[in-house]
Amino acid sequence: MGRWEPNARGRLGKAALELFDERGYEQTTVAEIAKRAGLTERTFFRHYADKREVLFAGSSLLQDLVVGAVAGTPEGTAPFDAVATGLRTAAAEMFHGAYAHARRRYAIVSAHGDLRERELVKLASLSTALARTLRGRGVPEPAASLAAEAGTGVFRVSFERWIEEGEEPRELADVIGESLVAFRAFAAGA
Amino acid sequence: MGRWEPNARGRLGKAALELFDERGYEQTTVAEIAKRAGLTERTFFRHYADKREVLFAGSSLLQDLVVGAVAGTPEGTAPFDAVATGLRTAAAEMFHGAYAHARRRYAIVSAHGDLRERELVKLASLSTALARTLRGRGVPEPAASLAAEAGTGVFRVSFERWIEEGEEPRELADVIGESLVAFRAFAAGA
Repeated sequence: MGRWEPNARGRLGKAALELFDERGYEQTTVAEIAKRAGLTERTFFRHYADKREVLFAGSSLLQDLVVGAVAGTPEGTAPFDAVATGLRTAAAEMFHGAYAHARRRYAIVSAHGDLRERELVKLASLSTALARTLRGRGVPEPAASLAAEAGTGVFRVSFERWIEEGEEPRELADVIGESLVAFRAFAAGA
Repeated sequence: MGRWEPNARGRLGKAALELFDERGYEQTTVAEIAKRAGLTERTFFRHYADKREVLFAGSSLLQDLVVGAVAGTPEGTAPFDAVATGLRTAAAEMFHGAYAHARRRYAIVSAHGDLRERELVKLASLSTALARTLRGRGVPEPAASLAAEAGTGVFRVSFERWIEEGEEPRELADVIGESLVAFRAFAAGA
């Protein structure tokens, strides 16, 4: 193990996004990312498997936050209410003050087919984890999987709407709240 | 163009699934698929870009059927009712009597990470097409995208439940109908 570098992970993430933005994702090397962050390649590989992983490190955190918040709702909470709480809580914790970063990352991911595919894989993983959590709380199938798919869909649509807000964006948690209202309205047959 | 081969596309698809099943997906070559079907490699490539495409040829058909059925619902149909009708109609047209084929295909796709990713891409494409169709019918955002995501989620969950039925499976359209009932119940807060 090398010496401890203060916030190496965050510095590498910031440097990577800057370089992807300036030079393009394909053209950027791990060596350049490490150099921009003032760190070594060896330090980079202690934190990330490759440059792609820098873009998806947040996906596991999001999943942990959503699942944790769902698990923290009172016993007996209706399944989709638990999912709704999980999404809003995770969004508030993870994306408050993170708009510029999220928008830049989204632009890079959207521009590359293989990164878009990876994003879909991560969302599918979130759905699977959510369904497992709901089943663990006694929610039967197919309600558990359907509520998980619906929640993941609400998150995806809300996130894309949020990214499009541009100037003076609202909180992601508020956009999700608005989507949940619209979702319940049409699901009920409006 | 070579001479016309009766049902070449279907024969190639059947041969490919048999070989993927017997020898494994990676081990099977286009030459073997063509030979099993009693056709030439050249004929194969007139119908499919590569062996992977044999597995995903149905995805475009599914999308066309769902979108067409949604577009065919009466003007003023509630968005999610239109999506529900689209899913059931497409399932009845495409998967009636196709259980054994669908199950075999699903086993092959599930066993390979890159094929699973491609399946997610195709589902995302279905969702995008559905949302576009709904917007074209005057459904505003975010309702259009949310209904499309919900519909795609219902299809995915229903399809997996159907595949798991094994002996004496119901019609996929009926499994979708059951999912839609469960979906509306939890979305309404049950």
